[in-house]
Amino acid sequence: MNNQNNTEALNYHAQFKGKVGIQPLTQVNTSDDLNLAYTPGIGAPISEIQNNPENAYKYTLKARSVAVVCNGTATLGLGDTGPLAALPVIEGKSALIKKFANLDAFPLCINETDPQAIIKFCKQIEPTFGAILLEDIKAPECFEIERTLIKELNIPVFHDDQHGTAIVVLAGLINSMKILNKNKEDLKVVINGAGAAGISIAEQLHSFGIKNIVLLDSRGIISKNRPDLNKYKLEALEFTNSENIDGDLKTAIKDSNCFIGVSVANLLNADDIQLMDEDSIVFALANPVPEIMPLEAKQGGAKIVATGRSDFANQINNILVFPGILKGAVENRVPKITREMLVEASKNLAAVVENPSLENIVPKAFDDGVIKAVTKAVS
Amino acid sequence: MNNQNNTEALNYHAQFKGKVGIQPLTQVNTSDDLNLAYTPGIGAPISEIQNNPENAYKYTLKARSVAVVCNGTATLGLGDTGPLAALPVIEGKSALIKKFANLDAFPLCINETDPQAIIKFCKQIEPTFGAILLEDIKAPECFEIERTLIKELNIPVFHDDQHGTAIVVLAGLINSMKILNKNKEDLKVVINGAGAAGISIAEQLHSFGIKNIVLLDSRGIISKNRPDLNKYKLEALEFTNSENIDGDLKTAIKDSNCFIGVSVANLLNADDIQLMDEDSIVFALANPVPEIMPLEAKQGGAKIVATGRSDFANQINNILVFPGILKGAVENRVPKITREMLVEASKNLAAVVENPSLENIVPKAFDDGVIKAVTKAVS
Repeated sequence: MNNQNNTEALNYHAQFKGKVGIQPLTQVNTSDDLNLAYTPGIGAPISEIQNNPENAYKYTLKARSVAVVCNGTATLGLGDTGPLAALPVIEGKSALIKKFANLDAFPLCINETDPQAIIKFCKQIEPTFGAILLEDIKAPECFEIERTLIKELNIPVFHDDQHGTAIVVLAGLINSMKILNKNKEDLKVVINGAGAAGISIAEQLHSFGIKNIVLLDSRGIISKNRPDLNKYKLEALEFTNSENIDGDLKTAIKDSNCFIGVSVANLLNADDIQLMDEDSIVFALANPVPEIMPLEAKQGGAKIVATGRSDFANQINNILVFPGILKGAVENRVPKITREMLVEASKNLAAVVENPSLENIVPKAFDDGVIKAVTKAVS
Repeated sequence: MNNQNNTEALNYHAQFKGKVGIQPLTQVNTSDDLNLAYTPGIGAPISEIQNNPENAYKYTLKARSVAVVCNGTATLGLGDTGPLAALPVIEGKSALIKKFANLDAFPLCINETDPQAIIKFCKQIEPTFGAILLEDIKAPECFEIERTLIKELNIPVFHDDQHGTAIVVLAGLINSMKILNKNKEDLKVVINGAGAAGISIAEQLHSFGIKNIVLLDSRGIISKNRPDLNKYKLEALEFTNSENIDGDLKTAIKDSNCFIGVSVANLLNADDIQLMDEDSIVFALANPVPEIMPLEAKQGGAKIVATGRSDFANQINNILVFPGILKGAVENRVPKITREMLVEASKNLAAVVENPSLENIVPKAFDDGVIKAVTKAVS
């Protein structure tokens, strides 16, 4: 953003001191209102909930509330900003969840980096919320946190940085294959970046049935020969790099036909893309500056290019996903969001684009049908 | 409440599934809005907050947000209901804080009883909030929690069950003294109940300068001869029971002229009140059934009677207090709410009643000037 845009964004945020507030849903203008909304009126719903905890979904905000839990250790592409500076992002998510899903999401930016303590925090807040959205917590801690919570909580938990991007990427790939007349067996996919998004994209593609996947971190291809892998990268080896190749990014993309970058700016140039098969697919998702700019990727021979940016075609934006996933999970009282639901969400999202084309592989945030398609996958 | 009122209260709560929701403060209807409210627009406020944490008060909800933290171990007069059943109370408080103080209070009913864990929880959420309101946490744990947080947090912390009632009680006493033409030196006060409210009332009265106070718990008068006192009751001995008397409630009220009950229903009858000095003051605050009903107290010779109920004169209701205390604390960025501020709040609240009378010692929730008077005390 340039300075003028920065000023506009700051004014926008300063205008109301943030982006979400509390809305009383009932009027409290008289003593009678007070008697109903507060004491003694609250006695009756308290008793009903004590008699049967299910009644919390009838008489309280639990039926429509989401905690957006964030520690700011991986705020967007900005790194470890801390929880306070992450507030504008998390408030933004809360506002979007209200807008698109009509759920009441409250931002909880917390001063905590220990995974076990974050797990405990989420268990502590479970009574108040219908779902938990994890946000901007760095890998590999985010994996342990999400897995444990899915196992141990009775409300659904979703880590958007992992699955949000993965769902849109697979949706974009499904339509890309349609356009290029390819099957999933034809895809030779290179995923560069093995953080929250990269590992989750690999899992999502594998669950969909894509077999040929090579995953890289900043040290190169993740293979059985690497002594430096954490348990999540080791797990990813069970369904990636079946030929157990070693090497750098250039080695990996040679003869591949699909590059997915969730890494850093300016890693590739047109010559690199020329190493790929013809009719290649390039999703350069580093933000705000992609691994390669769309024009250069096309000059190198890429047929379909997507980025995370709103100023190019084919924006891979997880705003397409998290409102619908949460809406489905909360409204349908889904105890756990399964891998099958995540794949279904990709398929449904892809189907929203009626006539996919090179410059139109995923819907836009305000397109009709997006929220319904994703919500339907979670039921 | 009778059955019809219960049905009305349940319908009221079921209508919107609770009483508060999230309100987006900015419109998000176009891609341009999305660019400002979310990525890339949030980059600018994030940087500003990273550069200077103070900017969180400029660009986020921290400037007007309150966490209402509750574990449901002492929900109103209902005892240990657990956090889920406490949600209707805490949502009610959130709605009232919005209504009276225009602050954004979010209910956080948490699954936690260990004081140290609750302290840790409040430290974790500190980045998101401008203040913390503790609610319905039982004594003596609530004392340790509040004290530690006041010492260790940089945002104000207020435990309404302690100080809310205490502030209104002292306000009522100030006006009662005016009506009965008594000075604070004339008061011989008996406080029955040594939980959160009772101990805090004793402290508040002492801070105001009332010297003759006797405090009782369910085992009788708290004296130096008792081997069974926790540290908070021992501390209260430093400014109560200066003559070190022992005995039961009847012993205590004999020749006293002010009874304050924060205990249980139907403890006293008219004969007991006759043991008191003439022109006595009886605040029977057990809810919903007071220690003695107003008519019977008057038959026993009480001159001024107050209860916690809305269907009698002189309702001692902490709704008069917590919105204003929080408004002052958040808007004036008060790091700690001091004992002096609490006493000032009582004085200011008493002064809202222009012509105090036997049946009009404290203002009502919707009276003009209440919020302003209390807010002014915290600055």
